[in-house]
Amino acid sequence: MRATVIHAPHDIRVEEVRDPTLSTGADAIVRVVAACVCGSDLWPYRGVTATHEPHRIGHEFVGVVDAIGPDVHQVAVGDFVIAPFYVCDNTCANCRNGVSTSCLKGGWWGGDDKVGGFADGGQGERVRVPLADGTLVVVPGPVSDDEIPGLLTLSDVMGTGHHAALSAGVGVGDSVVVVGDGAVGLCAIIAAKRLGATMIIAMSRHPQRQALAREFGATHIVEERGDAGIASVRELTGGIGADRVLECVGTKESMDQALRSTRPGGMVGYVGVPNGGPELPIRQMFNRNVGVNGGVAPVRGYIEELLPDVRSGAIKPGLVFDLVLPLGEAAEAYAAMDERRATKVLLRP
Amino acid sequence: MRATVIHAPHDIRVEEVRDPTLSTGADAIVRVVAACVCGSDLWPYRGVTATHEPHRIGHEFVGVVDAIGPDVHQVAVGDFVIAPFYVCDNTCANCRNGVSTSCLKGGWWGGDDKVGGFADGGQGERVRVPLADGTLVVVPGPVSDDEIPGLLTLSDVMGTGHHAALSAGVGVGDSVVVVGDGAVGLCAIIAAKRLGATMIIAMSRHPQRQALAREFGATHIVEERGDAGIASVRELTGGIGADRVLECVGTKESMDQALRSTRPGGMVGYVGVPNGGPELPIRQMFNRNVGVNGGVAPVRGYIEELLPDVRSGAIKPGLVFDLVLPLGEAAEAYAAMDERRATKVLLRP
Repeated sequence: MRATVIHAPHDIRVEEVRDPTLSTGADAIVRVVAACVCGSDLWPYRGVTATHEPHRIGHEFVGVVDAIGPDVHQVAVGDFVIAPFYVCDNTCANCRNGVSTSCLKGGWWGGDDKVGGFADGGQGERVRVPLADGTLVVVPGPVSDDEIPGLLTLSDVMGTGHHAALSAGVGVGDSVVVVGDGAVGLCAIIAAKRLGATMIIAMSRHPQRQALAREFGATHIVEERGDAGIASVRELTGGIGADRVLECVGTKESMDQALRSTRPGGMVGYVGVPNGGPELPIRQMFNRNVGVNGGVAPVRGYIEELLPDVRSGAIKPGLVFDLVLPLGEAAEAYAAMDERRATKVLLRP
Repeated sequence: MRATVIHAPHDIRVEEVRDPTLSTGADAIVRVVAACVCGSDLWPYRGVTATHEPHRIGHEFVGVVDAIGPDVHQVAVGDFVIAPFYVCDNTCANCRNGVSTSCLKGGWWGGDDKVGGFADGGQGERVRVPLADGTLVVVPGPVSDDEIPGLLTLSDVMGTGHHAALSAGVGVGDSVVVVGDGAVGLCAIIAAKRLGATMIIAMSRHPQRQALAREFGATHIVEERGDAGIASVRELTGGIGADRVLECVGTKESMDQALRSTRPGGMVGYVGVPNGGPELPIRQMFNRNVGVNGGVAPVRGYIEELLPDVRSGAIKPGLVFDLVLPLGEAAEAYAAMDERRATKVLLRP
């Protein structure tokens, strides 16, 4: 089959690779219907994290079950399934605590899983899914083509935006700032509105993303960054800052923006992958009672909750995809996102 | 009148100072009945923070109102009052949000307040209390001498322990680790039990404090620190760590202990004054979804809630005082706490 391989920064290729096979009784093989490129895929693409040797890449996909092992009971051949961006058994202590990204048996796509060896990355034609009963979520009934983008966001970005909002404790009537206008930031706007926030301030300089932010529920746009951005947020929030701030980037600058935009006693919910840092300034947090909560989002646990709203059209996270390409053009997909010509690219095998 | 002055590290003196007077219409003058030495007073005492010139010290006291300005309506001459360790108006946006330590008009004892100039420190005979209606809480009815220690803890340590537990989100059935066996850590044990924690692990090497920890509700004691301490906590908590960890020290080592003792998805509530650092390791927090929440405790807002339990004897935080000295022996009070001969010293003017 064909799958995407990163060889070096800016060197993405679609190559012939070995077909996946059932390796354990708990595996499924999923034929990928749609995959996508994640903002975090851009770290190795840009060379910010090292690529020591060519390896498979990708971790977001939906598809149809082609085969299952004898120990799989929750998923059947022919089911349309959503895969979260990681593998989990959904039964261990951490999964039961709602933190399936810390599953005691879990693992990651595109690497050597703890259970059964290598698991494919998703930006390819087929994937071996370890712990299929725990990992996959079945989408009942017929799935129309129009639904694919929305369903695919439940693999990562919509659940990750939701995690930012939950981690920050967004509730009814809150004022919320969203730092980051990528796909996760845009989904965080959806999540904040869905949880009852009444003022949602999107920090964005990009006209198309601003428009989508407003469509998703942003009530205000702040274009400035740094001190000027913080001054604008404070002006909108009675001089004290926002109740909740969702940090969806992962840089030192974005976290600083988030911390200083939060009112005393407020909370930053963060899901931006912190790329090598930053360390958090505890004294600044302490003096103002600003908390920081979040991390790698346990989206598996959110799929069932969010799925009805996606299918009903109550929320439309699928709109974050502004470019669709065939799998063979994965290199162009990465380039378009890297150059911010696209917010998020959907790949069809 | 007499009051405590710090001249330099290890140089605490009780000196004649000017009597306080009403400076604004919203002031009260309080005759101090009892004051105490705080763990954070030991930072300048030990020279960890600099003392550039002699200055008044102290910020925890209870007493009786001697005089009030014409704009004071909630407090009357003769009332027994508890003062939190800071000044606040209890009406501004931050106070209404429960973060009175960030009061827009507030200030600190022993320095130049925003309202009316210098405010005395509390380790003295009398104090000018700015914003008396917002700052002071009246204890109704006659107050017996036996009640003084318990009431005095509401000025800081009991409310601060409570803030650690609230910030960490302690709830019914939780497992909780308390890092720090000083007065705040011991009060955090009381708070965790009061909020429904069923497993409370106190990290302490000090036999008398261990005994008090058990009396307050600790179910387990861990004496080890570092990796060994974390291994012990994990062994007690099913291998994953505690739901909630209360950091009541404020050093790099204690925060590291706290972060690594927390289970994935858990929360550290911290109230230890971070002394010059540490910066928080965000990548470690991110990977395990461990949040950090807390800060300088808004104890003013907790006094009314905790007062009935203190007066009824349902909780006995006054037991943290293991030495009572006359004001004139303030130097010995500091030495006893510095040398860990006393957990917390009560001073009687």
